[in-house]
Amino acid sequence: MASAGDTDLKACLEVAVAAAKQAGEVIQKSFYETKNVQHKGKVDLVTETDKACEDLIFKAIQKNFPSHKFIGEEGSALSGTADLTDEPTWMVDPLDGTTNFVHRFPFVCVSIGLTIQKEVVVGVVYNPILNELYTAVRGSGAFLNDNQIHVTQTTDIGNALLATEVGTARDKETVDATTGRINQLLYKVRSLRCSGSCALNLAGIACGRLDLFYEYNFGGPWDVAAGSLLVEEAGGRVADPSGGAFDVMSRRVAAANGSLIEDLVRNLQYPQTR
Amino acid sequence: MASAGDTDLKACLEVAVAAAKQAGEVIQKSFYETKNVQHKGKVDLVTETDKACEDLIFKAIQKNFPSHKFIGEEGSALSGTADLTDEPTWMVDPLDGTTNFVHRFPFVCVSIGLTIQKEVVVGVVYNPILNELYTAVRGSGAFLNDNQIHVTQTTDIGNALLATEVGTARDKETVDATTGRINQLLYKVRSLRCSGSCALNLAGIACGRLDLFYEYNFGGPWDVAAGSLLVEEAGGRVADPSGGAFDVMSRRVAAANGSLIEDLVRNLQYPQTR
Repeated sequence: MASAGDTDLKACLEVAVAAAKQAGEVIQKSFYETKNVQHKGKVDLVTETDKACEDLIFKAIQKNFPSHKFIGEEGSALSGTADLTDEPTWMVDPLDGTTNFVHRFPFVCVSIGLTIQKEVVVGVVYNPILNELYTAVRGSGAFLNDNQIHVTQTTDIGNALLATEVGTARDKETVDATTGRINQLLYKVRSLRCSGSCALNLAGIACGRLDLFYEYNFGGPWDVAAGSLLVEEAGGRVADPSGGAFDVMSRRVAAANGSLIEDLVRNLQYPQTR
Repeated sequence: MASAGDTDLKACLEVAVAAAKQAGEVIQKSFYETKNVQHKGKVDLVTETDKACEDLIFKAIQKNFPSHKFIGEEGSALSGTADLTDEPTWMVDPLDGTTNFVHRFPFVCVSIGLTIQKEVVVGVVYNPILNELYTAVRGSGAFLNDNQIHVTQTTDIGNALLATEVGTARDKETVDATTGRINQLLYKVRSLRCSGSCALNLAGIACGRLDLFYEYNFGGPWDVAAGSLLVEEAGGRVADPSGGAFDVMSRRVAAANGSLIEDLVRNLQYPQTR
């Protein structure tokens, strides 16, 4: 059985899957209802459903693993320590793709990751609208609805389907860099998808639906913890968009199979020296 | 019963729905199989499934309406007259979102539209992966799985979810205009989605999942015939991105609710005088 020190990772996965499914039920039920939207900023949204899901996931984990820590958004039940330690630490996004949820665009999910010694060891991403449950325990492969999944074998970036997101910042420097990178990459890749969920983009890399994904300045480690493990356990690679090592705390991610990751990173440098 | 001259539009809808469902079954079955891909160009794809669906839709329509015409891609069973006439004319995309199909990204659909006197009067868009059947007959409303649908009531472009596609052309002028328009619009809208299916983007406007959509230089009228009727029958508006009247033959479309269409068109002019 997979373990990390004294922690039973299979038990952690089971609790995470049960909590994700319970939260998914809440999301699924309210998906088609009119939303009571609270604005965090101009383009960021929080909903009642988000809070309800957060609460039930927090309680399920805390009941089963009372000594475990949480890292979450400030002011949320899941926020705990701000700094990542070696202790078992849960990173949870109870509703990734909040804008999609508000608009009823079907890319929404629950994302639950567990780190031990600063490494993600358990990851669960669940899209209750498409009924897609992605799971991984480090060293044991990645699965979609219990079927093992693998990244693509694409070796030519010209055949690659790219995903990215435009984020929520609207200052000129950020917007210009966002569209500048897309501009650079359009000359290289087959096409572009923007689904609106960072965790589902990583799951999409893991299951071979997408070949390339990058995003800058997403909400926090809860958006990428589970998904980054899915990618690695599906045989892929995650990196910092600069080309350095992936840091779950950095709010920057690039993901692809081993053949394409360097090509992706090279084409992300902006502005590019052609 | 809806009719246009001698044509029984309800009968046309029924034949179109049956053909779409039959083709959808073929798409659904082969969705998770490895695809035998033929390259039309660097980033355009044709598959065996595309051809099989085309064949069965063509036969179903021709059997029921032997006098009706077709407009389709050159070399396809559905190609007929190149110019649109007043005669009943079917515009069919047997598999919209071919790139998605090849990559198993779940936004694929069958799109079937019928024009009479150059006006779209029947429209069917069917996504067999998400099991979403969109239907409309002119004057009788638009429906998703038999539930009537409506465009959003969003009046502030700042709350709007925008969809567009990056197309297949990779010359510098086109790519710069594509990303330039996205750049302009990011300052205005909530967020951006690129799903990879023109017909499903129009269906998304019709069902209120998206607020704004535009696309230039898509494949042909078969990509927008059915979807444009869905938008109109859901209470929305389609226009030429220049602000003129929508022309189903022009390979250019902008769609939104009545409150946002002018704002969308204004922000599509590129380069923009700020």
